[in-house]
Amino acid sequence: MTILRWGMVGGGEDAFIGDVHRMAARLDGGYQLVAGCFSSNLEKTKTSAIVLGVAEDRAYADFHTMAETESQRKDGIEVVSIVTPNFLHYDNVAAFLNAGIAVICEKPLTVSLAQAQALQTLAKERNTFLGVTYNYIENPMVKVARERVKNGELGELLMIDAYYLQDWLAVDIEHSGQKQAAWRTDPAKAGRAGCLGDIAIHAYNLLSYLVGYSATSVNARLTSFVEGRKVDDHADIQLSYSDRLLQGRVLASQVMTGHENDLGFRLTGRKATLEWRQEDPNVLWFRPLGAPAQRLTRNGPDYPESLNAWCRVPAGHPEGYLEAFANVYQNIRLALLEKDTLHYSNIDQAVKDMAFVEACLQSHDQGNWREVE
Amino acid sequence: MTILRWGMVGGGEDAFIGDVHRMAARLDGGYQLVAGCFSSNLEKTKTSAIVLGVAEDRAYADFHTMAETESQRKDGIEVVSIVTPNFLHYDNVAAFLNAGIAVICEKPLTVSLAQAQALQTLAKERNTFLGVTYNYIENPMVKVARERVKNGELGELLMIDAYYLQDWLAVDIEHSGQKQAAWRTDPAKAGRAGCLGDIAIHAYNLLSYLVGYSATSVNARLTSFVEGRKVDDHADIQLSYSDRLLQGRVLASQVMTGHENDLGFRLTGRKATLEWRQEDPNVLWFRPLGAPAQRLTRNGPDYPESLNAWCRVPAGHPEGYLEAFANVYQNIRLALLEKDTLHYSNIDQAVKDMAFVEACLQSHDQGNWREVE
Amino acid sequence: MTILRWGMVGGGEDAFIGDVHRMAARLDGGYQLVAGCFSSNLEKTKTSAIVLGVAEDRAYADFHTMAETESQRKDGIEVVSIVTPNFLHYDNVAAFLNAGIAVICEKPLTVSLAQAQALQTLAKERNTFLGVTYNYIENPMVKVARERVKNGELGELLMIDAYYLQDWLAVDIEHSGQKQAAWRTDPAKAGRAGCLGDIAIHAYNLLSYLVGYSATSVNARLTSFVEGRKVDDHADIQLSYSDRLLQGRVLASQVMTGHENDLGFRLTGRKATLEWRQEDPNVLWFRPLGAPAQRLTRNGPDYPESLNAWCRVPAGHPEGYLEAFANVYQNIRLALLEKDTLHYSNIDQAVKDMAFVEACLQSHDQGNWREVE
Amino acid sequence: MTILRWGMVGGGEDAFIGDVHRMAARLDGGYQLVAGCFSSNLEKTKTSAIVLGVAEDRAYADFHTMAETESQRKDGIEVVSIVTPNFLHYDNVAAFLNAGIAVICEKPLTVSLAQAQALQTLAKERNTFLGVTYNYIENPMVKVARERVKNGELGELLMIDAYYLQDWLAVDIEHSGQKQAAWRTDPAKAGRAGCLGDIAIHAYNLLSYLVGYSATSVNARLTSFVEGRKVDDHADIQLSYSDRLLQGRVLASQVMTGHENDLGFRLTGRKATLEWRQEDPNVLWFRPLGAPAQRLTRNGPDYPESLNAWCRVPAGHPEGYLEAFANVYQNIRLALLEKDTLHYSNIDQAVKDMAFVEACLQSHDQGNWREVE
Repeated sequence: MTILRWGMVGGGEDAFIGDVHRMAARLDGGYQLVAGCFSSNLEKTKTSAIVLGVAEDRAYADFHTMAETESQRKDGIEVVSIVTPNFLHYDNVAAFLNAGIAVICEKPLTVSLAQAQALQTLAKERNTFLGVTYNYIENPMVKVARERVKNGELGELLMIDAYYLQDWLAVDIEHSGQKQAAWRTDPAKAGRAGCLGDIAIHAYNLLSYLVGYSATSVNARLTSFVEGRKVDDHADIQLSYSDRLLQGRVLASQVMTGHENDLGFRLTGRKATLEWRQEDPNVLWFRPLGAPAQRLTRNGPDYPESLNAWCRVPAGHPEGYLEAFANVYQNIRLALLEKDTLHYSNIDQAVKDMAFVEACLQSHDQGNWREVE
Repeated sequence: MTILRWGMVGGGEDAFIGDVHRMAARLDGGYQLVAGCFSSNLEKTKTSAIVLGVAEDRAYADFHTMAETESQRKDGIEVVSIVTPNFLHYDNVAAFLNAGIAVICEKPLTVSLAQAQALQTLAKERNTFLGVTYNYIENPMVKVARERVKNGELGELLMIDAYYLQDWLAVDIEHSGQKQAAWRTDPAKAGRAGCLGDIAIHAYNLLSYLVGYSATSVNARLTSFVEGRKVDDHADIQLSYSDRLLQGRVLASQVMTGHENDLGFRLTGRKATLEWRQEDPNVLWFRPLGAPAQRLTRNGPDYPESLNAWCRVPAGHPEGYLEAFANVYQNIRLALLEKDTLHYSNIDQAVKDMAFVEACLQSHDQGNWREVE
Repeated sequence: MTILRWGMVGGGEDAFIGDVHRMAARLDGGYQLVAGCFSSNLEKTKTSAIVLGVAEDRAYADFHTMAETESQRKDGIEVVSIVTPNFLHYDNVAAFLNAGIAVICEKPLTVSLAQAQALQTLAKERNTFLGVTYNYIENPMVKVARERVKNGELGELLMIDAYYLQDWLAVDIEHSGQKQAAWRTDPAKAGRAGCLGDIAIHAYNLLSYLVGYSATSVNARLTSFVEGRKVDDHADIQLSYSDRLLQGRVLASQVMTGHENDLGFRLTGRKATLEWRQEDPNVLWFRPLGAPAQRLTRNGPDYPESLNAWCRVPAGHPEGYLEAFANVYQNIRLALLEKDTLHYSNIDQAVKDMAFVEACLQSHDQGNWREVE
Repeated sequence: MTILRWGMVGGGEDAFIGDVHRMAARLDGGYQLVAGCFSSNLEKTKTSAIVLGVAEDRAYADFHTMAETESQRKDGIEVVSIVTPNFLHYDNVAAFLNAGIAVICEKPLTVSLAQAQALQTLAKERNTFLGVTYNYIENPMVKVARERVKNGELGELLMIDAYYLQDWLAVDIEHSGQKQAAWRTDPAKAGRAGCLGDIAIHAYNLLSYLVGYSATSVNARLTSFVEGRKVDDHADIQLSYSDRLLQGRVLASQVMTGHENDLGFRLTGRKATLEWRQEDPNVLWFRPLGAPAQRLTRNGPDYPESLNAWCRVPAGHPEGYLEAFANVYQNIRLALLEKDTLHYSNIDQAVKDMAFVEACLQSHDQGNWREVE
């Protein structure tokens, strides 16, 4: 097995998602972390490097130096993961694309559609890989759902809903030292879209992945339920699809008390409905009209062989969040090494997702439906 | 126990809801059916009377005669149930109110707000009881939810959702002899509101019952997904409550494949969320912020003694649809006999519900938010 | 509809099951309560009679007089329900059989196998109906399960389990004035079998109903977990079926903390497994080998038309404990009026169930397997 | 982070569990696979070595050579995992213990109690680590359950049950080329205990872990439901605990149609019951007497801080089989590097588990209760 030489920007101590990326990459087994700029503080970067087994000379003070230096080393990194706060993504990604190094970026890709489009253009010009880590679509039962939609088992689609409900921001923790909350609710760091850019984007991406196309217009109600909060913490969005009967909805909330990480969807067609919840990820409900509901399981009966590559253990041995995240890393590894182009986490959808975010902000401002660019 | 002398208009053979009313009244035990006009066809009425143990001379050819005759008998009916198609409700109810006989009417009360208001006025003028059978609010765990909202256990309410999802109209059965479907999708008989007037009204009534007030404006998307259908079979409605942060939603569908009678709600406040589903009616989920979710059960631990009167059997012995319906009959019996005025199924909320229906139709026509009268 | 003239022995104030029988009979609609001996205390009987609408002269001081008097009235009762503590069943039942009046008796039929056999003989001699109220087998989804077993959809049966778990006797409430607990834990009134005779018998009856035959030997561990209790409150019983591979188990407990009325079964054959829980009675799980599990629903897809008579409302409108109990009354009414002999609650199985109880007691005493008579 | 030099015996192509061990070790991040004897066929071992990134000269033809050679290399392995069929464990483990190399062995430790005791003695003599991979007890919610038992939140324990239900051997696949089935049903390779040694042992180990002590006697019914099968495929075992009221049961089956990997437990004490299922591993049900049931979640409200080390991601981000397995590797790494002795997968319990297996075989042979050595 070829092991990719891998770097990381962000993901030092106190970080949540950087560690997730490292666990995912290890579980995949095809990456070796050899360079990093884990923090804007060099001391912290050096400490992290020691813990992570990165050589001292490859613990960088800034990402520009890292991109330049690594691109010139014979054993330089082949791919880098960007796990910094949103407002840094654009500069981070551009630096590595310019250096000809493949990039894996956390969602949202950028803080504006224009930035996203610029990176898309840059990646094409440089002919360099740029992928975005939409991890939830990598759950095997999500893929089963997509297959069933494609195969027509639902019939014409009528209604699609996705929700992402959390309660970690139900009270004002951003002003009491919770670092994750602090930057995610600060428009200067997270962008203008709060809950919208953090989790509604996952729900929307999931729907687009499942049906194979994007909404043409949106009607968004964005709310900050917690006093003094500078970004939305609740997003209720209606979706339209021109030239289709289909109606959609995305509901995302960070103040839905009693909900932990409750992402899920319901897809209804004339012939059947499919339902899935991320907190019970090994199960997909298939509810046909006029026949008993079926509880489909990962790797269980009727699981398609064509999806075996995204499973690691047999039916009844639950896989979860990290396994799906590891699938992102697997997909990208195969894309890089085998020029496999079938997989999903590509730049084009990420740009569409930013167009969705921007259309939602405009819809909210104008209090009406707004076309998605 | 005093037994009320009871009559019925509608509810002959082939009827669904008439039989439900009779089972509910029997389960309550306080009603004896002694008169009826079960069909517009006298022969059918007579046949039903025999089956139902109603004397031949009290099987009436028309409801006007029934109202007049019964009001003059010494042993005439004290209360009548109206279970005819919607468009007949107004005339049916008015006839009995004018005769001074208490009325129990199926929802929706009428086919227009104006009719509903007229009946409300008439009932007051005649000082005669008029109740509407919203059966779902009579589930004991719904009442537990209402208590918890009242007691402040949820904190300030932020979001409330109710849904009512069925699939029995997913295909065009109204043109193939299904009588229930035929009248319910015929605007001349059901009124202009299809799914909206049939089931969205239940979901809206449920929310109003739970929180104790009604929405001030609505934004409704009404759809007829089945070709050739003359009324909506899917209703997606946003609710606003002026002077409150609260946001609401009602989603009702008769084409949601794989869903039988999936009514439920989620109420979210700053301190906790409550969730209930009619298909699992003995359970209520209480999800406090920062503490484990609790599965509350009917008559189980923490069930309030004050709600014992709406339970018939101990915890773990499931009650269901008919028990809740029997509670409607119990409530009305107590209202009539003991002048108990605390219970719910009264005319005032039914008029508000018709105002909601009318506002939704107007919102849909105009494609925008609309105030509820 | 012909209405049966009906009497009751037991079921006065403070009683639980008497009221259940009355609600079940009312829901069925084919019974009118016209006579009763509701208590051993005549004053209490008279008070109950007033509440229940029974004429004063048919409120009897003792059951012997009631049996004799009613059998001689032209309008005397056609059927009587016995809802007294277990030790009275034998005398109660015998008196009415001797008077030629059909009898509905609560389970367990008697406090010994010999008594049960004597009543079986008496009923045959007198050619008089004697049925026992095993209400749980009257849940429609239990009947669906039985059909599937019969039709071979499970293949050869390998393992069958039934459980009945409660916690209402987890502490010593019999000595603090709880009347239900007091007589049910008093061997003089309940018989020597505590939990075994009260609820394990339901679980065993359920298994026998489902598969169509009874166990040939048992290995019982009976325990009194609560100090000072005079009967078992926990029964763990292995079942054997000679000439079959089949293994069975009954687990019943009244001290299983956190369980309300948790009766259920799992039937496993070579081709599929079926699972059902009484607390969620409208659902039956069908788990075929090599195909996705199906969630079958009452009156839903694949529900057999032949079982419609045991349903009252459509799919998604939950039925529960009282509806199943009303099916017992419906079955008996049809047996009496239409000589319908297909239904189940007959004396023969009740005697087999008493043989099971007796074998369990002997097995427990001897600490080993024991044949069932 | 110190990385352990790690070897493996077994786990070549076609193997299931070897790959699981490697994924678990990678997820932990503290192991580097540098040597192996992956198959009894050297060519296969060499192929595996290439795929796994093991140097050619450390791909060994036999485990004796591997143990000897590695123990003499300066950079030799510090720890080895044994993932061969059961009958090889004894020789494999002994070789490495004799070479002074720490050993991680798959369960069951051996094919007889005597062998297990011999290895226990050897490990002590050599003062060398020997751990057994009981992965299921490493689920965080299992640990929460153990804490609650210890803290007395269940009160005195009355009944404990564990089950492990699968259906992969419901038909005779061992004679049609399924390699996993072939060796696991071959007494020469798996030992005399089939289902008993393969999965009942997990259930028993789980109970022992949860309560902190082992059963004192067992009553086992072992069955081979599939014709021609040479080992049991179904094990129903009663457990006694002398000097305690406590009763236990283990039910394990490989022919329970419709069940994938359905391991779980129920622990009942006087004050509360705890329930957990491996297929939904992030949830633990706490059912107190007289208070509503609580749904506890991994890392959610009331999750003890002391158990944080066994979690990788926040509440609502499901962990599963591999995460628990990685905890085994984490525990062992800490035991080796930091002389942490608090963790569980040690030899002493593994020997007790073999005593359980042996007692079950004897109980089955004699048809009666049998003390556990």
